[in-house]
Amino acid sequence: MKKVAIIMGSDSDLPVVEKAAAKLDEFAVPYEVHVFSAHRTPDEARAFARGAREAGFGVLIAAAGMAAHLAGALAANTTLPVVGIPLRAKALDGVDALLSTVQMPSGIPVAAVGIDGAVNAALLSVEILALSDQGLADALDRARAAGREKVLEKNAAVEARFNH
Amino acid sequence: MKKVAIIMGSDSDLPVVEKAAAKLDEFAVPYEVHVFSAHRTPDEARAFARGAREAGFGVLIAAAGMAAHLAGALAANTTLPVVGIPLRAKALDGVDALLSTVQMPSGIPVAAVGIDGAVNAALLSVEILALSDQGLADALDRARAAGREKVLEKNAAVEARFNH
Amino acid sequence: MKKVAIIMGSDSDLPVVEKAAAKLDEFAVPYEVHVFSAHRTPDEARAFARGAREAGFGVLIAAAGMAAHLAGALAANTTLPVVGIPLRAKALDGVDALLSTVQMPSGIPVAAVGIDGAVNAALLSVEILALSDQGLADALDRARAAGREKVLEKNAAVEARFNH
Amino acid sequence: MKKVAIIMGSDSDLPVVEKAAAKLDEFAVPYEVHVFSAHRTPDEARAFARGAREAGFGVLIAAAGMAAHLAGALAANTTLPVVGIPLRAKALDGVDALLSTVQMPSGIPVAAVGIDGAVNAALLSVEILALSDQGLADALDRARAAGREKVLEKNAAVEARFNH
Amino acid sequence: MKKVAIIMGSDSDLPVVEKAAAKLDEFAVPYEVHVFSAHRTPDEARAFARGAREAGFGVLIAAAGMAAHLAGALAANTTLPVVGIPLRAKALDGVDALLSTVQMPSGIPVAAVGIDGAVNAALLSVEILALSDQGLADALDRARAAGREKVLEKNAAVEARFNH
Amino acid sequence: MKKVAIIMGSDSDLPVVEKAAAKLDEFAVPYEVHVFSAHRTPDEARAFARGAREAGFGVLIAAAGMAAHLAGALAANTTLPVVGIPLRAKALDGVDALLSTVQMPSGIPVAAVGIDGAVNAALLSVEILALSDQGLADALDRARAAGREKVLEKNAAVEARFNH
Amino acid sequence: MKKVAIIMGSDSDLPVVEKAAAKLDEFAVPYEVHVFSAHRTPDEARAFARGAREAGFGVLIAAAGMAAHLAGALAANTTLPVVGIPLRAKALDGVDALLSTVQMPSGIPVAAVGIDGAVNAALLSVEILALSDQGLADALDRARAAGREKVLEKNAAVEARFNH
Amino acid sequence: MKKVAIIMGSDSDLPVVEKAAAKLDEFAVPYEVHVFSAHRTPDEARAFARGAREAGFGVLIAAAGMAAHLAGALAANTTLPVVGIPLRAKALDGVDALLSTVQMPSGIPVAAVGIDGAVNAALLSVEILALSDQGLADALDRARAAGREKVLEKNAAVEARFNH
Repeated sequence: MKKVAIIMGSDSDLPVVEKAAAKLDEFAVPYEVHVFSAHRTPDEARAFARGAREAGFGVLIAAAGMAAHLAGALAANTTLPVVGIPLRAKALDGVDALLSTVQMPSGIPVAAVGIDGAVNAALLSVEILALSDQGLADALDRARAAGREKVLEKNAAVEARFNH
Repeated sequence: MKKVAIIMGSDSDLPVVEKAAAKLDEFAVPYEVHVFSAHRTPDEARAFARGAREAGFGVLIAAAGMAAHLAGALAANTTLPVVGIPLRAKALDGVDALLSTVQMPSGIPVAAVGIDGAVNAALLSVEILALSDQGLADALDRARAAGREKVLEKNAAVEARFNH
Repeated sequence: MKKVAIIMGSDSDLPVVEKAAAKLDEFAVPYEVHVFSAHRTPDEARAFARGAREAGFGVLIAAAGMAAHLAGALAANTTLPVVGIPLRAKALDGVDALLSTVQMPSGIPVAAVGIDGAVNAALLSVEILALSDQGLADALDRARAAGREKVLEKNAAVEARFNH
Repeated sequence: MKKVAIIMGSDSDLPVVEKAAAKLDEFAVPYEVHVFSAHRTPDEARAFARGAREAGFGVLIAAAGMAAHLAGALAANTTLPVVGIPLRAKALDGVDALLSTVQMPSGIPVAAVGIDGAVNAALLSVEILALSDQGLADALDRARAAGREKVLEKNAAVEARFNH
Repeated sequence: MKKVAIIMGSDSDLPVVEKAAAKLDEFAVPYEVHVFSAHRTPDEARAFARGAREAGFGVLIAAAGMAAHLAGALAANTTLPVVGIPLRAKALDGVDALLSTVQMPSGIPVAAVGIDGAVNAALLSVEILALSDQGLADALDRARAAGREKVLEKNAAVEARFNH
Repeated sequence: MKKVAIIMGSDSDLPVVEKAAAKLDEFAVPYEVHVFSAHRTPDEARAFARGAREAGFGVLIAAAGMAAHLAGALAANTTLPVVGIPLRAKALDGVDALLSTVQMPSGIPVAAVGIDGAVNAALLSVEILALSDQGLADALDRARAAGREKVLEKNAAVEARFNH
Repeated sequence: MKKVAIIMGSDSDLPVVEKAAAKLDEFAVPYEVHVFSAHRTPDEARAFARGAREAGFGVLIAAAGMAAHLAGALAANTTLPVVGIPLRAKALDGVDALLSTVQMPSGIPVAAVGIDGAVNAALLSVEILALSDQGLADALDRARAAGREKVLEKNAAVEARFNH
Repeated sequence: MKKVAIIMGSDSDLPVVEKAAAKLDEFAVPYEVHVFSAHRTPDEARAFARGAREAGFGVLIAAAGMAAHLAGALAANTTLPVVGIPLRAKALDGVDALLSTVQMPSGIPVAAVGIDGAVNAALLSVEILALSDQGLADALDRARAAGREKVLEKNAAVEARFNH
């Protein structure tokens, strides 16, 4: 199976980003985690993106805050799908990262998820890989069903408390 | 090859959305175009999403403006990757559509592209399908190279005009 | 008397949403509370909305955060009045939920109240039901008068402290 | 049947606001149209709101732009449901009117619709009046079905053009 | 000397608003403090504004949060200068109050100060009253000079710490 | 009578700003118009502000766009009331000018009116001057009454058209 | 003298960007103009930045819109000062470009000017080069004086028209 | 070597601003720190800016919050490069300071760094001074390399933890 790369711009992003790793673990999707900065280690980011398809990766997840160029910098160097996670930093509540990630110019797509949306970035990657892996598609359906069950249980508890 | 579905909430969105169709044509990726509204034809939208994998689709592109629920409504009913195009409507410059599309709850991912980003939605879809189609991957690389050439030509023209 | 349904997208929204229930209790308006997610349990949300008029409901209150589709998803499946409460989530201060709730397309109205405005959602529901219930209309007038009295008392206290 | 009042802050708002009147005409709901300004004719606005229930009104629709106080000023003087239409003015794209309309303090609810959302304000009013008028409820269902048909027709046209 | 009225929409605003009172005390400008809500006690607010000139007031300061109509509601009922203090509430960081206060329609001016700007609201009132009171004008100049001295002292301390 | 100074940062602001002059003419309030830039002619702006009280001015109106420092720069050099008009420039719809004008630090007040709010800036100035000029106060009341009449006439026209 | 490089992400940016060239011509500062895209020609952008100091450049000006990564991408590959011009594109009024340009992570500075601020980008570059070129510093002072004169002339014209 | 001036509008800004001083210390660049307020000590700010080139300064760094006029007020009085640091204050998350700093009118440039970006303001100043100081340029390159090493180390740690 193709691997997912989870790349963050700084290891301080780990508390958010490791939720993506945990979610990929649930689906037994192989992945690697890296710290590459679009600005501080641009060569490593570029080299990784350039070699990613060859190295067996199917999706790159890029998490960055502020003027979040990481997803775009990777996307500029690969035609693999790149998923961008805009991170909330100290100021501006993640709006800067969201706009820097999603407003890409025509020709170089990035798939943005919500602010701090690490779980959805992982799920989107699994959805992409599942296109050629029926077992993974089935696992996604089971996870959806389980998510639905959890809401139904909570609903039952709330109904029991309020509705007589 | 798996098909792409391009779904818009209203046929008035066609001028933006047909750029996605044209881009898929360039890559000879099969696609269908539909008008399903999350609010006006919720059953049709839901039925389409539920049957999409079975019907041979690999990616769903959803384009909508204002309180843009279409991408999310489709994503709620399939585990295929859903790409959301937030559209600029009369007021608010597309910010409402962007936030309604990208800020999805954990568990139901949507891959958002930029406001009115129909070309990138198509390219992202091709990138996703290319994971199991080397010919498509090669075509993406050629398209990137062509895009690069176009910038280099423009650069040459600008350099010729300004730099002596 | 027709019932009010209070529906939230996640039981984590309960601390805000239960203020709506408490306010309905004050007016002895019958209500039910449910957890239905537009994205995680779309069928339950849809089924509830479709059957709501038949089941004796007069108003649906929907509370959701982020890309808050719940009110719109209910409104797409009923012609009962739907009141939307945009909730503040971690990022963006509720702006995403406000725009996702209020910017509905022509034809499918949602009545939005302010961010985290659970009390006003309940009061609006009571106002709606009071159109055919003079006792309820009188109770609303008494509540307004009491609210007015409370401000007058606070004013008296402040005046006593500052004005000599 | 109870009447709807459509109140605008300035007659320059008429091009947007008359869409509400036209929609009420479709449902044969009786209505009046008035120009009352929260700031320029506060007494008339207040007197109208105070007497509205007595005068046979069931819903007040208030349309205003900029620091849009009209809906709130009416709501402060009646316990009838007040629907607010935030209008786009020259600057700020209607954001000022939206926030001035929707962010009401606890105790004085306003039901906000989207920016320039005159049609939805009318439909919401009809939904409210339909609670005690089955014929109106049926008319709403028919209008919904017609809206659905229109999208299906557009879909058919788009499908015929693009899908072979 | 004419009096200043400090009016707040809720006594919970007192921690911010009492800074205005304290500043007026520094200048020995007479004032009153009141709690009048544009929405909960509209008649009291209106009556106060209508009688304010007669009662010896020269400036009205209005402090309110969210859909902050108080300053506008007072301004609609007097031609005395009204100073608006937009207050930060739970959500939206005061942007709603700022726009609701400052974006007044032509004909009904409000003088807005910054978010939570109680001190400046008081100073602006003193500046207005000082137009016909040279002693007050001199006091303002002395206060400015004192403010300048305080910065110069802080500058001296910082220079002593950093510059050698 | 004290004079009003209308100061703009650039003569390209004249189409908006001259509405302030026209409104002052209506009230026969003496005024001067100047072009002083906080950034391009800081000395002239400063000198004018420093000498303004002495020169017989009672209020300074400052109109500027973008990083609109003009009102603040004048306020830093006088204790006369300074009214700031934030102007809409090419980008950002006047939000930059609004925040640059209104968010003044404690100690240096500016009275901000709405974006492009030249008429209200003039009226606010008249209100300030009217504190010591009963004739002016009466004129303001007459202007208010006339504004009210105009709305009532428009209301009559709209009522005649719509209500039967 | 060191040269300035004016780099734009697309030749469609030329109408704004050539104002920087014209301004540098006024100061007889040597410059080159290039079209390098952070996303479409990342290698050319990187190579240019890496060799820029060696090639005799003193300042790089980078103009880009939307998710404007160009200035940051250059700054990541040089320690020359990089001036970023955020450009207004179709949606969002340049806010996306402004945040993408200015919110750089610690360690990789970009000097942002205002939206579409090509003239100021050029002037800032001249100010930087003037640190080691007294003639250039004198030219800047003369340009300032001329700018001041122009405002004074406009002021004289406005004063002549309005003040009698 | 030319000196850098670090100027803040209030000594309460010191916790952010002293990071600029610390960074300049790393490069052994001489600097001074001052507290000058554009509004409270405008004369001192102006006098400092006017004499700065003569006094041996090469770059002025100005840090201010809210309606942050300091950078612009200095820039209006010198043709030295002025670097603006917008500071986050209580409300609005620094957006007010960012726009007040960066949206300067044509002719008076300010080089804005990100919100609270004191380190980058210092680095930008060093980059500017390094244009005529090869040792400083070399030190910048070494600092970049060290920054790169730090990321590589963190990457190694993360890789060791996650990738097997």
